[in-house]
Amino acid sequence: MQIDIISVIPELMESFFKHSIVQRAIDKNLVTIKLHHLRDYAINDYGKIDDAPFGGGAGMVLMIEPIDKIISKLKQERDYDEIIYMTPDAPVFNQKTANTLSLHQNIIILAGHYKGVDQRVRDLFITKEISIGDFVLSGGELPAAVVTDAIVRLIPGVLGDETSALTDSFQDNLLAPEVYTRPAIYKGKEIPEILRSGNFKKIDAWREQNALERTKKIRPDLLES
Amino acid sequence: MQIDIISVIPELMESFFKHSIVQRAIDKNLVTIKLHHLRDYAINDYGKIDDAPFGGGAGMVLMIEPIDKIISKLKQERDYDEIIYMTPDAPVFNQKTANTLSLHQNIIILAGHYKGVDQRVRDLFITKEISIGDFVLSGGELPAAVVTDAIVRLIPGVLGDETSALTDSFQDNLLAPEVYTRPAIYKGKEIPEILRSGNFKKIDAWREQNALERTKKIRPDLLES
Repeated sequence: MQIDIISVIPELMESFFKHSIVQRAIDKNLVTIKLHHLRDYAINDYGKIDDAPFGGGAGMVLMIEPIDKIISKLKQERDYDEIIYMTPDAPVFNQKTANTLSLHQNIIILAGHYKGVDQRVRDLFITKEISIGDFVLSGGELPAAVVTDAIVRLIPGVLGDETSALTDSFQDNLLAPEVYTRPAIYKGKEIPEILRSGNFKKIDAWREQNALERTKKIRPDLLES
Repeated sequence: MQIDIISVIPELMESFFKHSIVQRAIDKNLVTIKLHHLRDYAINDYGKIDDAPFGGGAGMVLMIEPIDKIISKLKQERDYDEIIYMTPDAPVFNQKTANTLSLHQNIIILAGHYKGVDQRVRDLFITKEISIGDFVLSGGELPAAVVTDAIVRLIPGVLGDETSALTDSFQDNLLAPEVYTRPAIYKGKEIPEILRSGNFKKIDAWREQNALERTKKIRPDLLES
């Protein structure tokens, strides 16, 4: 899989890719991540990539021409399954979308910035828009890193223990059950006795019940869908 | 405001804080961000901070003792408004939570990792649990950076143009309207004529209508709440 990320500040994502699971996937040749400076495709020698919005108002808007240039160039090099735009005004990312995207070969992720991109970019080039949630950030770089992380860890061979991803939250619409580790008693606080019983059938049943109860309490909306 | 972030891999967040709006806030003395290596509080000289889960199963669990040590030390230094744990099995972060957190003085953010922390950490030390959405990541570091970014940009003086944050998506439960910038015609695609009319009353009405229509189409759930 190749993921091309286009951004105004790609260096913002560097330490993340270098120290995370993504680097391990790169080392294993399971994924290629390319960070692209949008400013390398500026419309003039001063690096112009944004301008004031038509109709007035605060904030700058990313221009269509630099984005057209970089996306057209990338599309000449290979076919892309999706050209994704990270923006808060879009359908919200979830594990199902992560699962689907992890099956693709090539993806472009355009990180929004400032007030966003000229609407014509979205109309003409973007095949999928993703928000990571109902909150506003200073740019689409962290969201692009979030989506990349969620996708890459699902590629077979990336995680050391394949079963680990399957028992995470959301893969079955339930939150994960409580976990405990040593010591069994810490400052008087003891772990649930059943987890030390050695009876794995009972432990599985406890975990299932615990996951269900926690979902009901913390995220009842997950059970309705 | 001071934000202390505790993590297994704090270096993962370094480039983000260095190149984002957060650095600007730090330069202006509006916020102090401290990254803490959980491993500095390990239970032995080999840096042990995690162990296998009681009851068996894949993945490692962060132990209570190192987390107790660092949190206790920080709490001796100052009072904290919230001690937050980033984890997918928690209420979901939104702009309202960002607004509330941005009013605090001191916050600790504990980034989950591996299969999460020993449940007793959550029961004893954590005052607020936050998920950034229904997807699983390799750690709580990106979510900690997301929450930090969302909070810090709301602190007065951080953004250059105060009005900019107010016209973002979600501050009024509506998505932002479409934006356009120069050129007015690009490869035959023209911007909506009204945005060049100079009639700001009509432009405001168009934007309000556009925001409402887009919210209905893309995120109808926002209008129900």
